[in-house]
Amino acid sequence: MPMHSPAMLQCLGCKHYQGFQQSQMAQWNRSGYFRSSGSRDVNPDLEAERQTASFSVERLTTILDGGADNTRTRRAVEAVIHSDPGFSRENQYFQSQNERYEEAVRKAVLLKEKMHQMGWTEDGPETKYCYRALGGDLAFNVHRVFKNSILALGTDEQIAKWIPLADEYHIIGTYAQTELGHGTFLRGLETTAVFDISTQEFTLNTPKISAMKWWPGDMGRSATHAVVFAQLYIKGKCYGLHAFILQIRSLRDHSPAPGVIVGDIGPKMNFEHIDNGYLMLQNINIPRENMLSRFSQVLPDGTYVKRGSDQINYLTMIVTRVQMLWNEVIPMLLKACTIAIRYSAVRRQSKLNPGDPEAKILEYQTQQQKLLPLLATAYAFHFMNAYVNEFYNKGYTEIKQGNFDSLPELHALTSGLKAIITDYCTGGAEVCLRACGGHGYSALSGLPFLYTKLPASCTYEGENTVLFLQTARFLVKCLATVHSGQPIPPSAAYLSSVDSGKCQAWTKMDFLKPDIYAEAYRHRATRLLGNAATKLQTLVQSGAEQYEAWNKCTVQLVQAAKAHCYYIVVKNFIDTVEKLRNEAEIQKIVKHLCDLFALHGIFSNTGDFLHDGYMSGDQMDMVTASYLDLLAVIRNDAVPLVDAFDFTDENLNSALGSYDGHVYQRLYEWAQKSPTNQQVSQAYASYLKPLFQSALSKL
Amino acid sequence: MPMHSPAMLQCLGCKHYQGFQQSQMAQWNRSGYFRSSGSRDVNPDLEAERQTASFSVERLTTILDGGADNTRTRRAVEAVIHSDPGFSRENQYFQSQNERYEEAVRKAVLLKEKMHQMGWTEDGPETKYCYRALGGDLAFNVHRVFKNSILALGTDEQIAKWIPLADEYHIIGTYAQTELGHGTFLRGLETTAVFDISTQEFTLNTPKISAMKWWPGDMGRSATHAVVFAQLYIKGKCYGLHAFILQIRSLRDHSPAPGVIVGDIGPKMNFEHIDNGYLMLQNINIPRENMLSRFSQVLPDGTYVKRGSDQINYLTMIVTRVQMLWNEVIPMLLKACTIAIRYSAVRRQSKLNPGDPEAKILEYQTQQQKLLPLLATAYAFHFMNAYVNEFYNKGYTEIKQGNFDSLPELHALTSGLKAIITDYCTGGAEVCLRACGGHGYSALSGLPFLYTKLPASCTYEGENTVLFLQTARFLVKCLATVHSGQPIPPSAAYLSSVDSGKCQAWTKMDFLKPDIYAEAYRHRATRLLGNAATKLQTLVQSGAEQYEAWNKCTVQLVQAAKAHCYYIVVKNFIDTVEKLRNEAEIQKIVKHLCDLFALHGIFSNTGDFLHDGYMSGDQMDMVTASYLDLLAVIRNDAVPLVDAFDFTDENLNSALGSYDGHVYQRLYEWAQKSPTNQQVSQAYASYLKPLFQSALSKL
Repeated sequence: MPMHSPAMLQCLGCKHYQGFQQSQMAQWNRSGYFRSSGSRDVNPDLEAERQTASFSVERLTTILDGGADNTRTRRAVEAVIHSDPGFSRENQYFQSQNERYEEAVRKAVLLKEKMHQMGWTEDGPETKYCYRALGGDLAFNVHRVFKNSILALGTDEQIAKWIPLADEYHIIGTYAQTELGHGTFLRGLETTAVFDISTQEFTLNTPKISAMKWWPGDMGRSATHAVVFAQLYIKGKCYGLHAFILQIRSLRDHSPAPGVIVGDIGPKMNFEHIDNGYLMLQNINIPRENMLSRFSQVLPDGTYVKRGSDQINYLTMIVTRVQMLWNEVIPMLLKACTIAIRYSAVRRQSKLNPGDPEAKILEYQTQQQKLLPLLATAYAFHFMNAYVNEFYNKGYTEIKQGNFDSLPELHALTSGLKAIITDYCTGGAEVCLRACGGHGYSALSGLPFLYTKLPASCTYEGENTVLFLQTARFLVKCLATVHSGQPIPPSAAYLSSVDSGKCQAWTKMDFLKPDIYAEAYRHRATRLLGNAATKLQTLVQSGAEQYEAWNKCTVQLVQAAKAHCYYIVVKNFIDTVEKLRNEAEIQKIVKHLCDLFALHGIFSNTGDFLHDGYMSGDQMDMVTASYLDLLAVIRNDAVPLVDAFDFTDENLNSALGSYDGHVYQRLYEWAQKSPTNQQVSQAYASYLKPLFQSALSKL
Repeated sequence: MPMHSPAMLQCLGCKHYQGFQQSQMAQWNRSGYFRSSGSRDVNPDLEAERQTASFSVERLTTILDGGADNTRTRRAVEAVIHSDPGFSRENQYFQSQNERYEEAVRKAVLLKEKMHQMGWTEDGPETKYCYRALGGDLAFNVHRVFKNSILALGTDEQIAKWIPLADEYHIIGTYAQTELGHGTFLRGLETTAVFDISTQEFTLNTPKISAMKWWPGDMGRSATHAVVFAQLYIKGKCYGLHAFILQIRSLRDHSPAPGVIVGDIGPKMNFEHIDNGYLMLQNINIPRENMLSRFSQVLPDGTYVKRGSDQINYLTMIVTRVQMLWNEVIPMLLKACTIAIRYSAVRRQSKLNPGDPEAKILEYQTQQQKLLPLLATAYAFHFMNAYVNEFYNKGYTEIKQGNFDSLPELHALTSGLKAIITDYCTGGAEVCLRACGGHGYSALSGLPFLYTKLPASCTYEGENTVLFLQTARFLVKCLATVHSGQPIPPSAAYLSSVDSGKCQAWTKMDFLKPDIYAEAYRHRATRLLGNAATKLQTLVQSGAEQYEAWNKCTVQLVQAAKAHCYYIVVKNFIDTVEKLRNEAEIQKIVKHLCDLFALHGIFSNTGDFLHDGYMSGDQMDMVTASYLDLLAVIRNDAVPLVDAFDFTDENLNSALGSYDGHVYQRLYEWAQKSPTNQQVSQAYASYLKPLFQSALSKL
C-alpha cells in the first residue's frame, strides 16, 4: 500500500487523523485490529465541554442528592457494588430471559449477604443506592410488596409469623392481585375464597380463565407463597375483596402445591429478569388464620367483622407510587439524557459551515430542541421529590392522628404526577434513542433498555389515563367547592384566584419572568378545567345520565388534569430556583432550565394559551424567540448538567454514554462479546455452503 | 369445595360464567387446566362488532389491495406460505438473536426454492406478498441492495458477471456504506481506495476506527462479497466516493479474506434476524475492473473519466425509500391498529354505568381518542401510495427522456413523506401498545415487536430531521420562485394561492366539509413556511452567515416541512374519497375517516391554526365537538375497518389480535411454549433451595 500523502490526510477532514495514525495504526499493524487503550484519557470533544462549565458540577451533584452526606453514602455504596464482580452487568445485553432471571436471583441473594456484611439495613439510606447501582436488575421486588401487604393488612400475630421468614428469604412471596381479565377494576376480580364453617377453612378457586392471576412478579419461577386477593364468600354472600396468604410451592422441592397451577407468563418487552407469573387455584384450602385480618375478620361461626379503618392502606399505595417514580422512573430519564447528550458532544456529522470540520451534532438547533428541553424536564421532575415528600409527610402525620382529610388530595396529586411523569419519561427515552441515530438503536447504547422498560411504568401502579381521570374527578370537586365559597385543598387553591385574562408580557425578555409563565400555566389549567366542568354540567342538565356525560367529557378532563399537573411542576421548579438563592452560579443555570422547561411547554402547546386570547400571536412569537435563545444558552452547559447526575459508567451501561466519550472503541469492543461473534452459526454449513460451492468455479 | 350458589355466580358479574362453567370447567376438572377448544368459534364480543358493519369488508379489502386480482394473488401467496410449516413464526418471540438469524437464513433459502417451485419471479407481484406473509423475517434484504447497486452503478460487463451469481445466492452480497463515524454525511466517509498504476489495482483501507464499516445488513455472518464505498485516490488526489466490489469471505470455508476483519455488531432493539456487521480493511487489493464504472472509470494510466449523468441513481434511492414505506412501515401501523382495536372490543374493564356489566374498553372516549385517529392515519398513509406512484411514474418517464427537472420535487416529496410517515407510525405503535395495558407489554401481544422495530425506520434510509430539512430547503426555493412570479412544482403550487385569511366555518358541521379543512391546512403550511423563510432572510440581511442563519431557523423549518407534508396527506385523502363516488357505503365510512384524520390534526395542533387568527377559539370549539362526535361514529365500524386490512393470524402473530378474539386462552397457551416454562432454572437449586430449608422447620 502506498503511504498516505499529507494532501490525502487533509482530504479526510479530521484533525485527529495524524495522531490516530501514529498511535492507533501502530497497534493495528501489530495486532490486526484496534485495541482499547485502557487508559482514562477523555475524548477531547467531551473534555472541552467540561472545561467551560459555568458552575461547580460537584456542588450541583450534592444539591441533587439532597446534601453532601447523601452523595458520600451513595458513592460509597456504588464503590462497594461496582467493585464486586458478582454484581457486574457487563453481559446484560447478551443474555436470554432465562439467564437474566438467574442472574437477578443470584444478585438478590448476593445483595442480601453483602448488606449483612456491610451492616446496611433494609430501611437504611443505602438500600435505594444499591438499587441505583444495580440498575434495578434484581429479583424479589414483588417479594417486598408481599411483605408490605402483610405489614399493612396483617394482624400482629400474622406479622410475627410471616415477616421474619420473608426477611431472610426463607420464603419468597408474591402479591397476586391482577388477573388475566382484570387490572384496573379491582372490584371485578373473580378469584373466590369461600368460608366453610365446618372445616374452619377458606377454599380458594380460579373459577374461569379470566380469573387466573397473571403478571405478579416473582411468581413465575421463584415464589413459595402468595398474598392472593379474592372475593370472600360466607354462607353464599359476597363480602368483596380480601387478602389471603397461601403456599404455592413446596419448600422441600419447589414443586407446585397440590391444586396449584403456576408458571411464567413468557417474554415481555423488558423486565426479562423478573419471573412474572400466572397462578390457578383449584380447591385450595387454607386455615381461617390465613386471611389477613387487621381490618376485617371472619369469626369461627362465619360472622364477618369489620375492624377500624383501612384508609391508611391508601397511604401505602401512594408511597409505592411515589417511590417508583424517584427510584426507578425518573432516573431512567436522567440516564437517557446523560447518554444522548454526551454522545451528541462527541458525534460529529455534516458541516454547519462548508469550510469547517464536521460539527458536533449538539451544535445543531434541531438536536438541541430534542435534548435540552428533556434535560430541563429531568431536572423539573427530580425537584418534584422534595415537594411530594413534604406533602406526604404532612398528610401522614394528620392521618396518623385519625384525620383523613388530606387523603383525597394526596391521592389526586400523586396519581396525576405518576401519570405525567411516566408519560414524559417514556416519550423522553424515545427522543433520546432517536437523537442518537443508528447507534442509539444498538442495544449497546443502553437506550433500547430504557426505551422498552419505561412504557411499563405507564401501566403498572395505575394506568395513566385512569389516573389522570382520578385527578380530574378531584379537580372537578374542588371547582364545585370554589363555586360554593368553601376552602379548597392547597394544591388546587389556585382555582379560586382571579387573573387579568391577558398575558402581561410585552417583550421576549418578559417571558423569562417566572411570574409571567406561572400565571400563563395557571390560566390554562383553570380554563381547561372550567370548560370541561361546564360541558359536564351542561350535558347532565340536558338530561344525560351522569356516567354517560362523564364519558363524553373524558378527553377534555384528561387535558385539564395534565394542565393541572404541568402547572404544579412549573410552580415547584420556580420555588426550587428561589431556594437556591445562596448558590449564585447554580441558581443561574437552574433558572435557565426552569425557563426552558416552562417555555418549551408553551411552545409545544401554543393553542392552549392562544385559544381564549390569553396570549396573542405576537406574544407567542416572543415565547418562541426566548425559547430558541435558551437552547443556545443551555447548550453550553449541557454536558456539565448531565455530569451532575453523577451516574457511573456501570450505572449507565452504555457504549455511547460513558464518561470518557470513547464511543466508537467501546461499540467495537462490546460487540466482540456478543454471542453472535462467539458462536459458530449452523446457518452457513446447513444452508449457505452448498450454494457457495457453485460460485467457486465461476470466480 | 362447596358448590357455587346461583347468587354467587351473579356476583361474579359475568354473563358467560355459567356456560363457561359447564364446558370449560368440565375440562378443568379432567385435565387440571384449561385447554384450547381448537374450534373456529369467535368471541361473541367480537362477533357482535362484525354484524353491525356499515359496509362490505370484502369490498373495502379489494379497494385497499388495489383491485380484486391483487387480493386473490395475495391470499394465494399467503395460503402457500402459511401452509408450509417451514415458514412458521410460532416460536419467534422465544428465540435468541442466534436462533432468529439462523431461521431468517433458512427461510430465505427456502423461499427461493418455493418461488422457483411456484413459478414466482422476483419482480412478479407475488414477491411483496411473500414478504408480507413472512412479516419481513428474512435474511438477505441488503443482498438485494447489493444487487441493485451493481445494476445501477455497474457496467454491462459487471452486471453480467455478478448478477447471475447473486440471483442464485451463489454469492451473498452486502452494501457497505455507513461507517462507525459516518451515516448522514456521505462525503465524510473515510474508507480509502488508492489506485496503483504499477499493479493496476485499488488498495482499500480502513484508516481509523471511525472509518470501520458498521451496520450493513447481511454482513455480520453471511456475506461473501460487498459493494464498498470509499474515497477514490489517484496519484494523491481525492476524487470522492466510489463503489467497489470486493470479496470479504472465502467461498470455500467462509473464513474472512486476508486483510479483512469482519463480524457482527451485536444485539439491537429489534432486527435480531439480521446480521448487521462491521468490516475493516487492511491493504485489500482488488483489480481495476472491480470499481463500479457505469458513470466513472479509472483508465490504466490513472486518468479519471466521468461518463454520463448519475442523477438517475437518485431515482433508485427514491424507489427504495418509497418501497420501504408501503412494504414495511405502514403495514406495521395497520397491524398495530388491528391488534389494539380487536383487543379493545373483547377486553372489558370497569363500568360505564354502575348497573351494567363491565364495558368493552372501546366504549371509553379516551380509548377511542387513542386508537381511532390512528386508524384514520393508517388509511391516510395507505392511500398515499397511489399518489406517490403516479408522481414517481411521471418523473421516471421524464427522467428516462433526459429531463431531470422533476427530480428535486420527487426527492423533496418522498423525503418529507418518509419522515412524517415513519414518525407517525412509530408514535402509533406506542399508542397501540400502551392502549392494551399490561397485556400489550407482553411480547406475545405482537406489539413490542412493532414498537421496537419502527423507530429504526426513522433513521435508516435518511434520518428524519435531516429529511424534513431537505424538504424545507426545497420549499424555501419554491417560495422564492413564487415571489419571482415563475411557475412552481405541482406539489408546492398551493404556495402561490391566496386565501381569505379567516376560516369560513360557522357551525361544527362546516368542519366536515373537506374544502374547509383543506384550506385550513393549506393556510397553516403557507404561514409556517413564510414565517421561517422571513426569519431566514432577516437574519441573513442583518449580517449572519447563511449557514448560521439556516441553523437558527431549523426548528421552524422542520415545522414548516411537517405542515407541508400533512397538507399533502390530507389533500390526497380528500381526493381518494372523491374517487370512491361509485361505492356509496364505502365512500361514507372513508369520508368519516378522512374527516377524523383532518380534525384530529387540527385538534392536536390548535395553536398553528389560532396563531394568526385564521381560526377563532369558538371555531376551535366546533372542531373539538365535531372531532369527538366522529369518534363515536367511527367506533361502530372500528373492527370492520381493521378486518378490511385482511391480515391473517400468522401475519399478526399476536395473542391479542387474532381474528377469533380468544385473547386469554391464547396468552395462556402461548406462555406454555416459553423457554421459561420448559427449562428448569438453576436459580432454585443454586440460590433458593438452601434458604428455603430453613423455613421447613418453622411452617
